[in-house]
Amino acid sequence: MTPVRTGEFDRIERYLAPLAVGWPGAFGLRDDAAIITPTAGCDLVVTTDTMVAGVHFIGDEPAALIARKLLRVNLSDIAGMGAAARCYTLNLALPSSIEDAWLADFAAGLAVDQAAFDVALAGGDSVSIPGPMCLTVTAFGEVKQGSALRRGGARPGDRIFVSGTIGDGALGLRALRGDLPMLGEADRDWLADRYRLPQPRLAAGARLVGLATAAMDVSDGLVGDLGHIADVSGVAGVVECDRVPLSEAAGNTVAGTPDLREIILTGGDDYELLFTVPAKAGPAVAALSTTLGLPMTAIGFIEAGAGVRVLDGQGQPMTFAATGYTHR
Amino acid sequence: MTPVRTGEFDRIERYLAPLAVGWPGAFGLRDDAAIITPTAGCDLVVTTDTMVAGVHFIGDEPAALIARKLLRVNLSDIAGMGAAARCYTLNLALPSSIEDAWLADFAAGLAVDQAAFDVALAGGDSVSIPGPMCLTVTAFGEVKQGSALRRGGARPGDRIFVSGTIGDGALGLRALRGDLPMLGEADRDWLADRYRLPQPRLAAGARLVGLATAAMDVSDGLVGDLGHIADVSGVAGVVECDRVPLSEAAGNTVAGTPDLREIILTGGDDYELLFTVPAKAGPAVAALSTTLGLPMTAIGFIEAGAGVRVLDGQGQPMTFAATGYTHR
Repeated sequence: MTPVRTGEFDRIERYLAPLAVGWPGAFGLRDDAAIITPTAGCDLVVTTDTMVAGVHFIGDEPAALIARKLLRVNLSDIAGMGAAARCYTLNLALPSSIEDAWLADFAAGLAVDQAAFDVALAGGDSVSIPGPMCLTVTAFGEVKQGSALRRGGARPGDRIFVSGTIGDGALGLRALRGDLPMLGEADRDWLADRYRLPQPRLAAGARLVGLATAAMDVSDGLVGDLGHIADVSGVAGVVECDRVPLSEAAGNTVAGTPDLREIILTGGDDYELLFTVPAKAGPAVAALSTTLGLPMTAIGFIEAGAGVRVLDGQGQPMTFAATGYTHR
Repeated sequence: MTPVRTGEFDRIERYLAPLAVGWPGAFGLRDDAAIITPTAGCDLVVTTDTMVAGVHFIGDEPAALIARKLLRVNLSDIAGMGAAARCYTLNLALPSSIEDAWLADFAAGLAVDQAAFDVALAGGDSVSIPGPMCLTVTAFGEVKQGSALRRGGARPGDRIFVSGTIGDGALGLRALRGDLPMLGEADRDWLADRYRLPQPRLAAGARLVGLATAAMDVSDGLVGDLGHIADVSGVAGVVECDRVPLSEAAGNTVAGTPDLREIILTGGDDYELLFTVPAKAGPAVAALSTTLGLPMTAIGFIEAGAGVRVLDGQGQPMTFAATGYTHR
């Protein structure tokens, strides 16, 4: 069933084609397909995420923010592979109520982050949907052939690290929902911003190639995502809860309500890097952290076995109601 | 907002991971991203299409058919670039009413066409949507570096060709809607099948590299799509209506209702190849048509100017209410 396309062509020409100027293989969005060929000697890394209004975002956020988060969660996966971001494709399924002003704002958000992360639009599709907005980005990066960071290389004795701070996104979402009335305004705004606008750790991911034995970005929650590394690597992960780095705002929040610790460890939307390195590589990680001006904190270790254990301050295993993850 | 993922992981593992066995860079769908690197000396061709229930399909079709059409419309774009299909990624936004049996049937349809077209699943995403099903495939192909077929190479004097027959898909959709009650059952079923299960012309596209000056697949309607070639090439296209090849079923249909000719020429959903060649290449096209056992029919020519003219049997210009296309 071919939708009436007249308006669609005009919209693509006006709002999206300017975003494709930086990618010659996009052919101005005027061909059947795009050309996305990695540099000789590099592997092409491809990831894709779909966001639905009412599920992955509320829907009444500024369009520019929706666009930037959509792009950034994909770039975070590129970072998790240790790759350099190159370009992306965009699939828009928009309700008929979406007006040109919304699309203009959406495109403006993409333009800001294209400049920030040195990527361009390479292609896409635009359709109508008689329901909630459904948005897909597929992001492309490149990494020296055979050197992409993977989930499967963690070995017993490795140390587990995370970049940045953990739990801000999950707390930010709850703050936006009004679930954390005890928060001060500054903390609430800071956490909400961490939820709305994640920071893909592309520079850090690229520098972890050759250093990390396993890596991924934390999107589903620290415990669940460490479970993925443990599963694929065939090992067990142990996290010392008190070592998990918290922002000042998250620290303030959890100080008053210790039960929120579970949300911090399992809530997701962190978009930080989770990685393992051999024990002897600790100093190299510290040096990298200094170079990048990005905290990298040892939070535990890998041992033989399966699954994930989280130990409290007394070394006792903690249990969680929901981990975003089920060990099979 | 992280959806509850427990069931999602199980579903991906059960129904989708088996489809990724043939693509080592999919990592069993268990990593942040996939590796999709073209063969050395080749360009990677990337296209993406989104289909929404109630817009691009009715919604109550067998899941396997929905899956196969979704994959095939993307492969048709790969064919339009002259590329060989390699793999694809899949984004599923499914309402909670979708049960495992539906997903099993959907995956079975993909498995059939993966074998038919020698492609494999490389990655994707699966989310819930509080509304109509929204499905995206991004397909990847490869073609010798610099030799992808493009829309922009048509030159005055070139001949315009199409593969197969035109109008079947558009008539098939109307037959399925009950709009063509005069049709015999055999014709109705044949046309409906052409709508439901397009045939991406991958072999033909690959053999047109070095022969065609411009090419694309016909998805939005013959007149509109020829308009794209004319626009991007900076030329005019002239179609002689009586030369446009019709299937027996379409011929029967239009014989009784001449007004349907407009739907045939502008309706879309053909997924045949539309291409231009220098006038002297006619015999080469005829030889290719014989080799492939696929009709390739000269339907008109390129001249200096802009836009598309369709001439009737008396050489008079025809006009259409809707072309799926607006000349700018």
